[in-house]
Amino acid sequence: MYTYTHGGDIYAFESKKILDFSANTNPLGLPDSVKKAMAEAIESSDIYPDPFCRELRAAISRMEGIPNENIFCSNGAADILWRLAAGLKPKTALLPVPSFSEYEEALNSVGCEIEYFYMREAEEFRLTEKFIERLSPDVQVTILCNPNNPTGHTIPKELLGEILAVCGKNGTIVVMDECFMDFLPDAENLTTKAGIERYKNLIVLKAFTKLYAMAGVRLGYSFCGNKNTLKRLYGGGQPWPVSTIAQRAGAAAAGDKKYVADSLDMIGRERKRLQKTLTDIGCKVYDSQANYLFFRASGEIAGKNIDLKEALIENDILIRSCENYRGLSKGYYRIAVKTPEENDILIECLDKKYGKRRHQ
Amino acid sequence: MYTYTHGGDIYAFESKKILDFSANTNPLGLPDSVKKAMAEAIESSDIYPDPFCRELRAAISRMEGIPNENIFCSNGAADILWRLAAGLKPKTALLPVPSFSEYEEALNSVGCEIEYFYMREAEEFRLTEKFIERLSPDVQVTILCNPNNPTGHTIPKELLGEILAVCGKNGTIVVMDECFMDFLPDAENLTTKAGIERYKNLIVLKAFTKLYAMAGVRLGYSFCGNKNTLKRLYGGGQPWPVSTIAQRAGAAAAGDKKYVADSLDMIGRERKRLQKTLTDIGCKVYDSQANYLFFRASGEIAGKNIDLKEALIENDILIRSCENYRGLSKGYYRIAVKTPEENDILIECLDKKYGKRRHQ
Repeated sequence: MYTYTHGGDIYAFESKKILDFSANTNPLGLPDSVKKAMAEAIESSDIYPDPFCRELRAAISRMEGIPNENIFCSNGAADILWRLAAGLKPKTALLPVPSFSEYEEALNSVGCEIEYFYMREAEEFRLTEKFIERLSPDVQVTILCNPNNPTGHTIPKELLGEILAVCGKNGTIVVMDECFMDFLPDAENLTTKAGIERYKNLIVLKAFTKLYAMAGVRLGYSFCGNKNTLKRLYGGGQPWPVSTIAQRAGAAAAGDKKYVADSLDMIGRERKRLQKTLTDIGCKVYDSQANYLFFRASGEIAGKNIDLKEALIENDILIRSCENYRGLSKGYYRIAVKTPEENDILIECLDKKYGKRRHQ
Repeated sequence: MYTYTHGGDIYAFESKKILDFSANTNPLGLPDSVKKAMAEAIESSDIYPDPFCRELRAAISRMEGIPNENIFCSNGAADILWRLAAGLKPKTALLPVPSFSEYEEALNSVGCEIEYFYMREAEEFRLTEKFIERLSPDVQVTILCNPNNPTGHTIPKELLGEILAVCGKNGTIVVMDECFMDFLPDAENLTTKAGIERYKNLIVLKAFTKLYAMAGVRLGYSFCGNKNTLKRLYGGGQPWPVSTIAQRAGAAAAGDKKYVADSLDMIGRERKRLQKTLTDIGCKVYDSQANYLFFRASGEIAGKNIDLKEALIENDILIRSCENYRGLSKGYYRIAVKTPEENDILIECLDKKYGKRRHQ
């Protein structure tokens, strides 16, 4: 049968009290403004939703400073990837890995020939200048995740500029997945969204999923300065991808700046606590400014060949094993940064199982 | 730009009081049971929805008498069409027309070569035995709409059986769109769903959209007895197509038999009233047991070359012009059967404009 390869499938467990660190969405839950808008939208869910998401796009336009007509919305950023594949049918692609596996899944669906740029452990799994050497007019599309999922690394601004310039010259479509971008304190400096007019081959992908904890609502969006590509996004799937509730929820979220500020504040503090615990029990924790941490089991855990995901599920805690990511192997994990109370539970559990404290 | 070709885009109009007869969904609006389930589902919409829709499929299984594992759900039946195209990539298709245009759109997305079986006005746009002659092992897929949209005609049971047998022998995939089936009093007799075990090439398409007035919620489902096809449906798009709210809404709707009985009752009565008015003003109304009526303008309307859609929009009434359906031309229309009060408005308006009463 079909195999599900992502985090967040808590529905597969018998236990109803699973604490899910495997899906990296905002731990604060849905903003109250969004819940209210969703409740109000129920009444008008009997008719077809606006196929062009007119009010939602207007709200996103105000929030992001991107013109209305350059925005396309769909039911999750993942759906936009599939529409891009169906609409543009690229024949060749270059993908840095490890990264989000839906890039590969969507491209495979149209028989695209994919080459991989393996980011190396010796280079902390960072995207480097060597990536530029692999670009050529033969590469029809590349998909970059910034900050990268699962590693949390950002792409340095200069390298980004170089990639866009080279791909612009080569006619390579650049899909820039910025779904976690707004968790970064310096998002405004790192986003490429201002480049969509200059680079007609650039498509920026974003979502309400992570930042506004709207994973169950299904709402993603994208920016593009190329009219033909936008047409192919509309024509690359069914005409009503975004539910009425998702459209209203997104419009409400787009106006809720306080929720985002509060979230960044809390996540910043909590990330440090989790980072410390993981380091203390001997894990190698990679640098992340986002709402999740990527780490390699080492020290006692690696030495005893412990499967940390299996070990923690005994305590009803679910973390993301990253061994099914291309370019990774057993022993790599990703955890979401959650609320102080939830993080306490994980920290205490890790401490008890593997911390020095237990030896004292 | 991308052109929207369906009914229901009331959002395109300045006026906020458009009475929409162009989208053929249940006029009773969302069942109360569904509204309640939706409201309760808001709270848990912060996490990813179940990618396998486990509880929803269990509810559909109970309602339809189809085993759990033979059900696939997605965000609208239209999305399932696109997944079938992406997953199965048929190279050749035979489509009876006029019918729902998304069949063609979805198949075109994978470069499928489509041949059309034109249902003729002289045969009341019915599917006939002649269709069988056009079937052959060279046809990889055919999509049949029963009852047909926009005409409302059902496919006779014997012809259905013949088609399934011939396609079974030929290895032709049969997609049976039964999205309007449950509006028919004799649905149990006409549905092909019991055939999915015998015909492994059969896929039955259904939706909550029409019968439960859940168009804005986005929820469709399908039955298939072929494990490989089911795998391709899962793999033919993103892993989280159905929102948390849609999953809960569907599970609630699946248990609401009273709403369906009440709806069929009212729609049956109201269809007759609308049928009479249209006939009275000189239109040719085609036979329909569903929640919509298909008709051709004739008499004074045709004689004066009146565009009925344009004429009625002046009264803030939107009907579906069917001239953009393949196999139809100017002068064909479809209207939904709505509530008695709403139908009164349309009837009065038609009467005033074109009825005999005004001459008395």
